[in-house]
Amino acid sequence: MILGLLRAKRSLPAVLALVLSAAAPALADVPGKEWSVSSFSLDNGMQVVVIPDHRAPIVTHMVWYKVGSADEPPGKSGIAHFFEHLMFKGTANHKAGEFGQKVAEIGGNENAFTTYDYTAYHQTVTPSALETMMTFEADRMRNLVLTDAVIGPERDVILEERRSRIENNPGALLNEEVDATLFQNEPYRIPVIGWMHEIEQLNRVDATAFYDRYYAPNNAILVVAGDVEPDRVKELAEKTYGKIARGPDLPPRIRPKEPEQNTKRTVEMTDARVSVPSFSKAWVVPSYQTAKPGEAEALDLLSEILGGGNRSRLYQELVVKQGIASSAGAYFEGTMVDDTSFTVYGAPRGEAGLQQVEDAVDVEIRRIIKDGVTADELEKAKNRFVRSMIFARDNQASMANIYGSTLATGGSVADVEQWPDRIRAVTPDQIKDAAAKYLNPDRSVAGYLLPAQSTQK
Amino acid sequence: MILGLLRAKRSLPAVLALVLSAAAPALADVPGKEWSVSSFSLDNGMQVVVIPDHRAPIVTHMVWYKVGSADEPPGKSGIAHFFEHLMFKGTANHKAGEFGQKVAEIGGNENAFTTYDYTAYHQTVTPSALETMMTFEADRMRNLVLTDAVIGPERDVILEERRSRIENNPGALLNEEVDATLFQNEPYRIPVIGWMHEIEQLNRVDATAFYDRYYAPNNAILVVAGDVEPDRVKELAEKTYGKIARGPDLPPRIRPKEPEQNTKRTVEMTDARVSVPSFSKAWVVPSYQTAKPGEAEALDLLSEILGGGNRSRLYQELVVKQGIASSAGAYFEGTMVDDTSFTVYGAPRGEAGLQQVEDAVDVEIRRIIKDGVTADELEKAKNRFVRSMIFARDNQASMANIYGSTLATGGSVADVEQWPDRIRAVTPDQIKDAAAKYLNPDRSVAGYLLPAQSTQK
Repeated sequence: MILGLLRAKRSLPAVLALVLSAAAPALADVPGKEWSVSSFSLDNGMQVVVIPDHRAPIVTHMVWYKVGSADEPPGKSGIAHFFEHLMFKGTANHKAGEFGQKVAEIGGNENAFTTYDYTAYHQTVTPSALETMMTFEADRMRNLVLTDAVIGPERDVILEERRSRIENNPGALLNEEVDATLFQNEPYRIPVIGWMHEIEQLNRVDATAFYDRYYAPNNAILVVAGDVEPDRVKELAEKTYGKIARGPDLPPRIRPKEPEQNTKRTVEMTDARVSVPSFSKAWVVPSYQTAKPGEAEALDLLSEILGGGNRSRLYQELVVKQGIASSAGAYFEGTMVDDTSFTVYGAPRGEAGLQQVEDAVDVEIRRIIKDGVTADELEKAKNRFVRSMIFARDNQASMANIYGSTLATGGSVADVEQWPDRIRAVTPDQIKDAAAKYLNPDRSVAGYLLPAQSTQK
Repeated sequence: MILGLLRAKRSLPAVLALVLSAAAPALADVPGKEWSVSSFSLDNGMQVVVIPDHRAPIVTHMVWYKVGSADEPPGKSGIAHFFEHLMFKGTANHKAGEFGQKVAEIGGNENAFTTYDYTAYHQTVTPSALETMMTFEADRMRNLVLTDAVIGPERDVILEERRSRIENNPGALLNEEVDATLFQNEPYRIPVIGWMHEIEQLNRVDATAFYDRYYAPNNAILVVAGDVEPDRVKELAEKTYGKIARGPDLPPRIRPKEPEQNTKRTVEMTDARVSVPSFSKAWVVPSYQTAKPGEAEALDLLSEILGGGNRSRLYQELVVKQGIASSAGAYFEGTMVDDTSFTVYGAPRGEAGLQQVEDAVDVEIRRIIKDGVTADELEKAKNRFVRSMIFARDNQASMANIYGSTLATGGSVADVEQWPDRIRAVTPDQIKDAAAKYLNPDRSVAGYLLPAQSTQK
């Protein structure tokens, strides 16, 4: 059993990021598309999405809860991720580990992850085991046994996870403080895994309150992709999840918003464990949920043109042409409930210094603000987005991820399906305008990771 | 009628800061002291403190509520201060303005202020008017008429207050973002006046919820100083405040705490309205409420020796001796519920640059960390604290402020009375240890206020 904490920002693997944001064109664009996505709701409010794919006799079963770390009460950071761990404990009907054992027995695999905006559980198994997966998953939605004897040891596990992932990793510690400096009011300023001193205090009362509030069918989305038909999924869903009573109605996810930023901020971490310096620079920008029409799509393409992989301007200019950087790029976290971040980054190579790399990144940003992008490179970026969906199509779990993350952040099935057309519609001027509006060098938040001997970046 | 927002940090006038933190020795140290402070509680839980002072026929009447901006719900910044304004509106028994008119008629004065941790209302009047003040003040504790017609126009007043005090003041805007960068989890990161976009959304529902929760005798402290005896205050208090029903019990004021800081952070504001550059550098440190025994006293004396006025090291070295700074100093905000800030600051003079001033400040900090302070300068700092209470004694409102702010942040009458002895007990080693423990140059948060033409500090 692998438990996962998916920190959507920065640690999101590039490939998955691409898949999550760029895979959707598959549905609308590919001649003879193989998917016809069905969506419906159960009587208790649980949303269901079915993505049939009969190329192989496997099925991916996911349940997404519309709750993540950004929904945690003040002072209780880490409870969403902690709860993800607790979902692998015993229920009134099954001992701890029984579900995982069953998955292993039939040669399947399972995982779970927590982000700012959602928590998801999934198994990939043979179609004949789907009903069993649903039965177990429905069971733990409401029947967990949350005693102090369960909570205490698992809290120690989480504390150890934080030690190994964050405390032992200067870059991770720096990122936490950069996030908290970038977001001064939104809950994205708080790490998904939680702050050590707050995790230490999490207890049974917190866990029970969280479970009772958020783990209910009307706050969940079932996504099934693979070798199964919608009618069969519906039948099984009604038989399993459909038996669970609707939970209390949850208010809209209205969270504190960022105030206007008037300053340029830096966060500097000097640590003996760092051998090569690096920097990142971030801005608060709209997400797909908060943007005006077309703006999030423009930011997505801007990140692709500026720093999305080896064809991007930053990589070509800094790594290939000037040879001053070992890495340079940009990314945009679009699939979020609230305003999100746009980030550029780089690390020097050879004789080059960090400042030189940062200056070169700034030059590329200013060049886009001043001159925009060419129709040709925009077209190529759009095509790269379209091509990247090939990866998604080849993996039913990727398709399930796209629908699950979109729906869990407030989007719809139609949003996913119309996304390729919205990407196609972006003009070079929109890219230039987005860069000029959001990537203001005097309003940025930069993080510097420096070796101990360095006195100055 | 002057409505006040007392931003405890930075904008606190130096004189009042001195009075608030240093006046207490009066009570224990001065031979033939004129005050004998009484304290008791009413049956409904309202605390009462009486500080008789018969030198002049005036009396200061204050009511302190144990609620400030740090108690606001997420997303509702500014409601505590907004509510302070609403307290000057009409009640079921008196029209808006009637209370103020009465104060003016009898030649008194009144004011109110809101901080992170408390909100206070006070009037200074002749003793014969005390009962009238209590009657009015008790009335508005529970009988305010909170309609949309009252709320809407007052919200416009607050928005205008924010525009004139903050938006038109680059230094104030910078301080807000420095605070939000220094405090990444504690509510002190949020400005007392509130963020513009959140003030705009405050409404009748928010105001009513806030009033019903926090404005009750069991969350209030009555402080009366001046030409009156405790028995008379008790009699009047029972007749007025004593008639108000106890409100719902409030949970302890347990707020999110800061995570460990691992970085050095900067916040830079460049603005055409700035003519002379300046900087501040701050650290999160314990307050009198959160410190281990003696630590807050050591921080208080450290701030005094390092940068408390013209006799301090920073002033003597940078302004007088080197002549590179027009100002330089330090301050510590000790009277707070949670961990607070210790700040140093400076501005260059003549040919000197900002970096030169910052470096010189850092030299003085490192000198104390390395060599500590002398017994002689510590003794003098203690004596300055003692002497400064002369100002407090001369002003009954200052005495009322000391008791009110101490009690409203979780301290006791005994804390105020024992404070001089605790200050006396601080050793040079404790000062050195406090500097070494808290003023780490690699973990600071610096703010830079720069003229528009400057490219580099």
